[in-house]
Parts: sequence; structure tokens; C-alpha cells
Amino acid sequence: MGRSARWLVAWDGGDTTRLPCMSTQVGPVDVDALRARLDRATAAASIAGVDALLIAPGSDLRYLLGAGGTSFERLTCLVVPVGGAPVLVVPKLEHPGYAAVPTDELGVEVVTWVDGEDPYALVKKALKGNRTAVSDMMPALHTVRLRDVVGGEQVLAGPVLRELRMRKDAAEVAALREAGAAIDRVHARMAEWLRPGRTEAEVGADIAAAIVAEGHVLAEFVIVGSGPNGASPHHDLSDRVIEAGDVVVVDIGGPVAEGYHSDSTRDYVLGEPRDADVWETYAVLQAAQRAAVDAVRPGVTCAAVDAAARDIIADAGFGEYFVHRTGHGIGLDVHEDPYIVGGNDLPIEPGMAFSVEPGIYLPGRWGARIEDIVIATADGVESVNNRPHELVVLPT
Amino acid sequence: MGRSARWLVAWDGGDTTRLPCMSTQVGPVDVDALRARLDRATAAASIAGVDALLIAPGSDLRYLLGAGGTSFERLTCLVVPVGGAPVLVVPKLEHPGYAAVPTDELGVEVVTWVDGEDPYALVKKALKGNRTAVSDMMPALHTVRLRDVVGGEQVLAGPVLRELRMRKDAAEVAALREAGAAIDRVHARMAEWLRPGRTEAEVGADIAAAIVAEGHVLAEFVIVGSGPNGASPHHDLSDRVIEAGDVVVVDIGGPVAEGYHSDSTRDYVLGEPRDADVWETYAVLQAAQRAAVDAVRPGVTCAAVDAAARDIIADAGFGEYFVHRTGHGIGLDVHEDPYIVGGNDLPIEPGMAFSVEPGIYLPGRWGARIEDIVIATADGVESVNNRPHELVVLPT
Repeated sequence: MGRSARWLVAWDGGDTTRLPCMSTQVGPVDVDALRARLDRATAAASIAGVDALLIAPGSDLRYLLGAGGTSFERLTCLVVPVGGAPVLVVPKLEHPGYAAVPTDELGVEVVTWVDGEDPYALVKKALKGNRTAVSDMMPALHTVRLRDVVGGEQVLAGPVLRELRMRKDAAEVAALREAGAAIDRVHARMAEWLRPGRTEAEVGADIAAAIVAEGHVLAEFVIVGSGPNGASPHHDLSDRVIEAGDVVVVDIGGPVAEGYHSDSTRDYVLGEPRDADVWETYAVLQAAQRAAVDAVRPGVTCAAVDAAARDIIADAGFGEYFVHRTGHGIGLDVHEDPYIVGGNDLPIEPGMAFSVEPGIYLPGRWGARIEDIVIATADGVESVNNRPHELVVLPT
Repeated sequence: MGRSARWLVAWDGGDTTRLPCMSTQVGPVDVDALRARLDRATAAASIAGVDALLIAPGSDLRYLLGAGGTSFERLTCLVVPVGGAPVLVVPKLEHPGYAAVPTDELGVEVVTWVDGEDPYALVKKALKGNRTAVSDMMPALHTVRLRDVVGGEQVLAGPVLRELRMRKDAAEVAALREAGAAIDRVHARMAEWLRPGRTEAEVGADIAAAIVAEGHVLAEFVIVGSGPNGASPHHDLSDRVIEAGDVVVVDIGGPVAEGYHSDSTRDYVLGEPRDADVWETYAVLQAAQRAAVDAVRPGVTCAAVDAAARDIIADAGFGEYFVHRTGHGIGLDVHEDPYIVGGNDLPIEPGMAFSVEPGIYLPGRWGARIEDIVIATADGVESVNNRPHELVVLPT
């Protein structure tokens, strides 16, 4: 079977929806790597004091098996029991989507079910004990029924699996570098599309095509926030016509073939900025983002990296206009652990990958955000995004 | 803020197609209709014995407020307490996405929160009592934390809200008719795109463009299952080159502006079928689908409608090749209650909308499925899809 076509739809309101029928293989992932991940997941579950992980389709399942799309109303669940073989409970209808998974080599038993049968009972049957940890994104439809059928205690698998997923191995780091370089190539071409007289949506469509052309498998999100729209961090695209003098926030990214994501924000101004305060304010933002990246090294907490950016912005008087956390982890998900936010005292370790993306948002006027994805190294940090951080002047 | 444009990017190993299209929130939904839904939801919650509904972004939130995208790691939650005013807990960052919701007129209090604050505590504060019902699609990330913070008992809101959502009002029926007519127009044009020598993905991209052109806001799913791929019900698109003699299953749909979905399947053969059994087998399928639609009227159970199709297929010897339920409800979601499946003794009532889509799948050879969306009326049934049900011969 050949590769499946994929679809992206970008919605107003900030979210991006993948379509239900889309296949989402990642990889191919090395069988030995998958076996090691299953072993480490089992060990992490044991340490966490649970009897089994119950993993729904989504990024956790893709991490452990190399396949597994989105949750629907029919239960698909990988049971990873402590002291037993993993069992993949899957609707017979959806089994073909897992054809590429080397279940025999991994020692994963596959149990299919058809409409009218009870998949929750099949999960219970695969369990030893009833203290379970469920995928963070498993819908209530499934977690509530599992809780009723399995009984016992139900906790989140996120804290268990994040111990694995936060620490990227060499292949994962390579994929993140590939994704970062690809999105850098898109930012490098911005002058081809971004000019006055075009709408944000028109520019966004060109950017989306370039995201794919430069090596991503799909354009997962495209934010073009021009003029006052730049002051809304989650604005994505509108019919607003871009004007000379606008500062434009461009926040874009997508997955590469291995499933790892890019995510990088740069800012552009069309000729001289309309607002008199732009250069001075942007300089504060640039210094803040630089300081946060420079603060990253093993042992430093996530909260400290957030503070490194936030303090500079607050000291310059813009604290109330920096209305979000400094960053989010990234990998098979666009947003995952660790979060670079006040209160998160998790110490950074080598292999952790996350965004550093402070912003300043002046409602009704303009805004800016500068974002790199960085990976902590043995003694410091590596950025996978390397475009200049200055406000880029584009011709009008 | 103007309407946002949407686009569709199809990736097929390098080809990209961009289709700008209109954006939408759901609706606009009449304020009185929204108020009535909130009142009925509160009443249904009371009848169900819960103290409040906790509604996450998704179709339930769109039903109650006319807005609300997808769940991310930051909690957005509409609290609908029995005996109190509804409260929308939303990240400040995402509040603009709800700007069009008439919260004042609806008596909905809005409580925003920023990174570093605890949104689960805000939900608890809005509650009276702690027996709560959570959106079926709310992720475990949120349900587990709500359960820990709120305590008490946590059940699913689906059974509560389905009492409302299953019974479509006149405006909802009109939207489903609009969607059905639009997807019929796409099926009517299939000869423009479906011919030998093209891949499923190429044909799929054309169909997707037509889905939007004929009045949907996006092409939500496009299944083109040619030849042996037709025997996999959830196959979507591949690089397989369509050949003369192939039977091709085309299952397509998307939402119209009001948020209601189309979903219709028809089958095509390129010239004379390669397999000798196609006409005779297809006749069985057509009779089964007809019988199931004819069985629909108030008082008949969902299970009985499934049986009407399944019995005909089983009597002809193909029972083991009909590997899924006969249908699913449809509305703001593609798949919702009621499910037309063995064991579901829910009696059909006027206003219930669902698919009737039996299929016969002969692994490795060919398959077919025939699908209409029907709505139960006061004394029978209305189909919103009205293309001929015969296997359509297309030129080679």
C-alpha cells in the first residue's frame, strides 16, 4: 500500500484539526528502539506504582509502537502491564492501520474486536491488578468506562511517559534538527509572500505550501498576525489586508516524516513601522529571548528559564503585556513536557527539547514574539532554529 | 476581526493543492436557541442526578455556546450547574475565540486565567455539589485533575447531552438537508474525476476541492477505496493507480457553515467489473440498505434497523463480510448518538439523524458500501441523500 495522502485544515479560533481518516504513521522506527521504549515504559510504570499503562491512539501510542492516529468512539488501547506482555486492543476495522507495527518481534499480542463486543472487558482481561495510568489525551468516553469496568485507581500516564519522552535520544534530536532547518528555510523565504495588499490568509496559504515543499509532511499551523492582530497571541489568519507599517508575527510549523515537529516564530515589518515604539520595545523582547536561551543548561529549572525572559520584559515595564508562559516542550506533539513556566521546578536535563518564545502584546496596536526550539546538551544548549532574531524589514 | 480564511493542503508525496475557503464558527446560532439549549441541558443534568455539567471545547461546547474548538493542555471548561448560572473558565489567551458568544445575554459568567494559575480550582469554585458529568471527549489530562480537585463522583455528560443533541430541531434538520444536498452534488460529478490511470489520492484531491466548491466549509474526509482497497472499510487514500474493472467505494463528507455534517457513500465501477460476482453481490447490498432505511420510523429500535440490513446480507451468505455497525448518528459531529448497532435498544424518535451504511467487504478482491443520512420524521423517515443507489458504471 502506498503512502496515504494527508490533509490539513486550519481553523479560525486557533486550533488545527487533522482529519479523522488520515493515516499517521511515524517513523519508520527501529524495532530495537521500540522494544527499548516498551521496556522503559514498563519500568517507569513499575516505579510509578501502577499495574499497567493504558495507552490510547495519539502521540504516546506513536512513541511506543510507531503507529496510532486519533481516538474515536471505538476503543483502541495498548495495555502495557507490569510483569506481562503488552496487548493491543483494537477494532478489527482499524487493525490495518497498525499493519506496519512489528507486533510479533515486539512481543505485543493483538486482540481485535467488532461492533457489538465490549472492548473494555478485553482491556480488563489483559490486566494484572487494577491501578492503571491512562494516556493524557484519552477521552472521558473511554476513561470513565475503563474506570467503571476495571475499578481500582486511575491516574495519568503523562507523568510516567514524560520521563521517557522528555529525554530525546540521538535519532529524535536528529529529527528535531531536520524539522528546525526546514522551518528556517520557510522563514528565509518570507519576502516571496509577505507584502502589503495581501490578506493574512493569502500569505498564510503560500506559507503552508512552502512548509510542505521545504520538507514537512504537512503544514500543521500557520499564524500570520499583522498589525493589531499581532497583539493576540492565538490569532491565526484572517481576511485583514496587510498594510505598509504593519509589524507581522509569523509563527509556523509542522511535523517531518519521523513525526517530530518544528515550531518557530519570527517578526517582520513592512517598511518603517507605523508605531513609534516598535524598535525600542522589540529590542527588549530580543534581549529577553536571548537571555532565556542563554540560561538553558542541565540543572537549571524550567521556571528559571521562564524568569530569565520575564524579568527583562518586566524590568522594562512590559510585564503585563507578556501574557503567556515562555515555552513548551516539543517532540511527537507540538506541545508536551517540559513546560517553561513559572512554578515548574523541574531541572533541565540533556535531551530535553522545548521552545523559548517570549512575546510582548500591545492590545489594539501591535505585538511580537520570538521563538526558537532548543535542546539541552551535556553542558549547555543547542538551538535547532538559526534564523536571525532581529525584526526583519521587508520591502513595501 | 474579519472572518478567517481556511485552506486545505493535500500532500501526496509532493503535490500540494491549496483551496481557500470560508471560515466559520458554528452558526451564528440564535440567542434564544442557545438559551433554550442551556436551559434544557441544566434540566437534563438535574434529571440525571448530577450537580453540574463540565463541558470541554468540542461539539458539546459548540452546541451550547456556538463556539469552542479543540481541547489543548490549557483547560477551557463551561460549568453548567444545576441551580446556578453557567460559568465559562477559559485561558485569557483563548478568550478572543469566544468573542462572538453572547455571554451576557445568556447569563454566562466568564472567568479567565493565565499561565501559572490553577483553572481546576476555578471550576471547583463555580460548582455547587460535586457530582459532575464531563464531556465525552474531555481528555484524561483534565478529567483526572478535575476528579482530584473536585472530588465526588464523575460521570459522562454524553448520555445527558445526547438527550438534547439526538433530537434535531427544525434549524438543525435544515442544515443537515443542506449538507446532504451538497454532498449529493459532489457524487453527481464523480465522472469528472474518477477514471483509470489516476491514483486514489489524485482523485481524492479533486473530490476534496469539489466538496468545498459545492458548499461545505471544508472537506473533512475523503475515502476512495479502489479494487482490493474497497475491502478495507477504513482505507482512505493511497497511491494505488485506479484500473479499468475496479469497483471504487467513495465515502465523503464535511461540515456546512452551521457546523452540521454530510456523510454519504456511493460505489462506482470503471467499465465492466473485473470480478464476476459484483452485480449479484451488490444487489444484495442494495436491498439490505433499502430495507434498513425503510425500517426507520418512530418506535423502532436502533438495533432493529441494524438487523434489517444485516439479516438480508447474512441470509445471502455474506454475514461475515459485513464487519461493522449499520450506522452512526450525525450532527455537529460526524459520529454521535444514536448508533445503529446490534444491542442498542433505544427507540427511534422524530428528529434523530443517522447514517444507514451497510457494506460487504471481500478481502483482497473488492468491497462496497451504500450510505445515506436519514432523519426520522413523525411517522417515517426522510433521506437527505438522494443520489441513485445503483452501482454506477463510469467510462474507461
